Amino acid sequence: MLAKRKDLIYNINYEMSKTQPEASKERTLISETVNNIGKLASVRGWVHLRRDHGKLIFLSLRDRSGMLQIVVNANVSGPAYEVAKSLKPEYAVEIMGEVKKRPENAVDKGSAAGSVELEAKEITVLSKAETLPFDMGGKDLNLELPTLLDNRGFTLRHPKIASIFKVQETVIDSFRQACKEKGFTEFQSPVIIPQGAEGGSEVFEIQYFDHKAYLSQSPQFYKQILVGVFERVFTVNKTLRAEPSVTTRHLTEVTTLDAEFGFINTWTDVMDMSEYVVKAMIEEVNAQNSEILKSYGVEPLKIPAKIPRMKLREAQEIIFKRTGRDNRQEPDLQPEDEREICKWALEEKNSDLVFITHYPVSKRPFYTFEDPDDPGYSLSFDLIGRGTEWMTGGQRINDYEKLVENAKKRGIDLKKSEIYLQAFRYGMPHEGGFSLGSERVTMHILGLKNVREASLFPRDMERVDERFSH
Amino acid sequence: MLAKRKDLIYNINYEMSKTQPEASKERTLISETVNNIGKLASVRGWVHLRRDHGKLIFLSLRDRSGMLQIVVNANVSGPAYEVAKSLKPEYAVEIMGEVKKRPENAVDKGSAAGSVELEAKEITVLSKAETLPFDMGGKDLNLELPTLLDNRGFTLRHPKIASIFKVQETVIDSFRQACKEKGFTEFQSPVIIPQGAEGGSEVFEIQYFDHKAYLSQSPQFYKQILVGVFERVFTVNKTLRAEPSVTTRHLTEVTTLDAEFGFINTWTDVMDMSEYVVKAMIEEVNAQNSEILKSYGVEPLKIPAKIPRMKLREAQEIIFKRTGRDNRQEPDLQPEDEREICKWALEEKNSDLVFITHYPVSKRPFYTFEDPDDPGYSLSFDLIGRGTEWMTGGQRINDYEKLVENAKKRGIDLKKSEIYLQAFRYGMPHEGGFSLGSERVTMHILGLKNVREASLFPRDMERVDERFSH
Repeated sequence: MLAKRKDLIYNINYEMSKTQPEASKERTLISETVNNIGKLASVRGWVHLRRDHGKLIFLSLRDRSGMLQIVVNANVSGPAYEVAKSLKPEYAVEIMGEVKKRPENAVDKGSAAGSVELEAKEITVLSKAETLPFDMGGKDLNLELPTLLDNRGFTLRHPKIASIFKVQETVIDSFRQACKEKGFTEFQSPVIIPQGAEGGSEVFEIQYFDHKAYLSQSPQFYKQILVGVFERVFTVNKTLRAEPSVTTRHLTEVTTLDAEFGFINTWTDVMDMSEYVVKAMIEEVNAQNSEILKSYGVEPLKIPAKIPRMKLREAQEIIFKRTGRDNRQEPDLQPEDEREICKWALEEKNSDLVFITHYPVSKRPFYTFEDPDDPGYSLSFDLIGRGTEWMTGGQRINDYEKLVENAKKRGIDLKKSEIYLQAFRYGMPHEGGFSLGSERVTMHILGLKNVREASLFPRDMERVDERFSH
Repeated sequence: MLAKRKDLIYNINYEMSKTQPEASKERTLISETVNNIGKLASVRGWVHLRRDHGKLIFLSLRDRSGMLQIVVNANVSGPAYEVAKSLKPEYAVEIMGEVKKRPENAVDKGSAAGSVELEAKEITVLSKAETLPFDMGGKDLNLELPTLLDNRGFTLRHPKIASIFKVQETVIDSFRQACKEKGFTEFQSPVIIPQGAEGGSEVFEIQYFDHKAYLSQSPQFYKQILVGVFERVFTVNKTLRAEPSVTTRHLTEVTTLDAEFGFINTWTDVMDMSEYVVKAMIEEVNAQNSEILKSYGVEPLKIPAKIPRMKLREAQEIIFKRTGRDNRQEPDLQPEDEREICKWALEEKNSDLVFITHYPVSKRPFYTFEDPDDPGYSLSFDLIGRGTEWMTGGQRINDYEKLVENAKKRGIDLKKSEIYLQAFRYGMPHEGGFSLGSERVTMHILGLKNVREASLFPRDMERVDERFSH
């Protein structure tokens, strides 16, 4: 490495030229250094890596805009060289120096400031760091998941880990943008609710003063109420589920993306809208996060003009024909079935996504609309991608009497659903909606193996920041 | 009323002209009808009001884009007239008819489609409504708060009530926009946490499988951790507080807007940033929601180029001089003090907002930075507006040793703060941030009397959707 770098030691007997470069007391972001070649600039950030080569010390400095190579030359940098010798990874520092163009063959093209380096003149330590328990200087951070999470307070700083959450930011924000383009209003859905929204059991209970309350598993009731107010609504919201199983795709706390809208002509309007939104999200990730996708070595998702759609029974028939596995009487797709139908969609339709419709009414929530042309089956859909469920949606029952009848059958507490029922008692048009988890989408876009990697601070049976000791 | 409308009965012996207006099967939004004068259009929405005048029935139809007058003429509309007679408020309907220009003197200028009306030809009932328990047809919905909330499932539909949440949407979205302009990254902060963030007692506890967990009162710890990752972060997040008092300005569930950023030069950078963001939010509301502000009869907030800033002790001195009330030894402003200092700011500085700084260290959380030039007092601030606190913020302790020392003093469980402490153990630059509640800001912008009015589904000691019976 030193040999390679010898071409850069161009100025061993450096002396400030008579015409001083223009000084800057303002902080310069690393990504902006490329516009300051030949000038003095002051950058701030964290020491990502330090490499010592005798009289030369190289630092990789990391700020929110990128990574910059710092050259500290014993013969040039004076006291800064002594400071540089004491630096350890994750020290927060301010470094003033001259921005220099790197030779063509030393340019790091994957990096925003890869064409320049900073020759340090002054280094100020802003905050020290203890010695890291493991090396974080590589391109990848190859840690076992428990170690990664036990040290979440600083492993998140690794650029490749941090970049997962830039993708998640795009996923969430592009969902919002796509909904807004279609005339949706954003609303805030409550976390504390009077009962489990769908009569399910996997609900967290809280002591609420003198009463019991619960944590919301879904903004379903509230988004439906708001169809009566704004017609088209969406929410980015926390949903909490006392998921008693430890799998690679379940969390107890999820940031879900929910939309609901009224005055539909047909239930496929709901699927069409969800398709529009998902496509817009993926396009936006491809546009904004292409470098991150590259660093994860993932192919952009293949999405045809129209995502294939089929009934559950058709999917089961295809799976039976392809594998001999006869799950044609099952009310749902098993994980291996989900993988198989995704394989089929990719091979036959060049699509990484596939809509499965018409799940049995008995397997869907009480508000699910039954297909009048296919009794026993619902006007609902799941979007399956890369082997697992991404999204669920469908048309809802908008008739008050029918809704009450179904709710009673499923043991929903009507008294605690009064606000919800009001929305249907007073004129609710035909409506439907869909829901997807931001962590799962992020996971699948980046080809992560475990949904925990796509949550900043994942919660599951075994962990709320700290690992529980049993 | 009928007399007034006689000028509009221009076509009693209506006959379809030979050249049929261009038919449209697509839904036309009410706001778009103005571009379809002389054409047939099909609108959908809710019956807001029905007025019968013998052979003429007038409907106000409401959709997400506005309100439209529908004229149903017994001599013209045929079967549609019979349908119209059966309509009640909140019926969801589809109405096809001809868009006609209203005479100049009948134009409703406050309404997007106030210059046109639709002469109904076909009315289809999409969903019926029971008779409303009270009239919702007026410009205002004058109900006692408990009645308003007991019937939240449909009272939200009243345009004036709904508009509160258009303002809240702008408040939240403009917060995001302003942060993004300044290079902040949006993140998702957890709701379930291992301990009360600030060692406070007003925290909801949940049974978390075999363990205890808590609901987050603030994303404070997490936003600070993420300063180490993205430098500048913000989050729109649910915060839950077991607030044991029933006041007009407290809720148990709030949508808070939080920002935090590192590499500050001085603590006033934090106040400057918060000022920038709040101004951007208010400007955006003024720009996007001016009609709503008008309907609430509120003056736009007065905000000078620089919002006045003063130490708590200076404010107390001013209050003492103005009122004779000597609270100069108090560690905080009392509600009457907050109102008085706002009065002063408006009278003396023409400002509806005022920053109060340097609260005693003992009254602020353990991570608050003490002013080295004013020992015992913190580099923290509250932004007070129209008589109450809008925002709180300040510089934080970034030195690991000092932070641990303070946390211990306040009884923070260090073991359960491990992820948080890691962020400081490994190089945290000088940083600070601020936090504001979207409901309070919305409340103050619209001059609402109770913060519950600014929450779609307010939660307090007495209500989680349903009113608790004690």
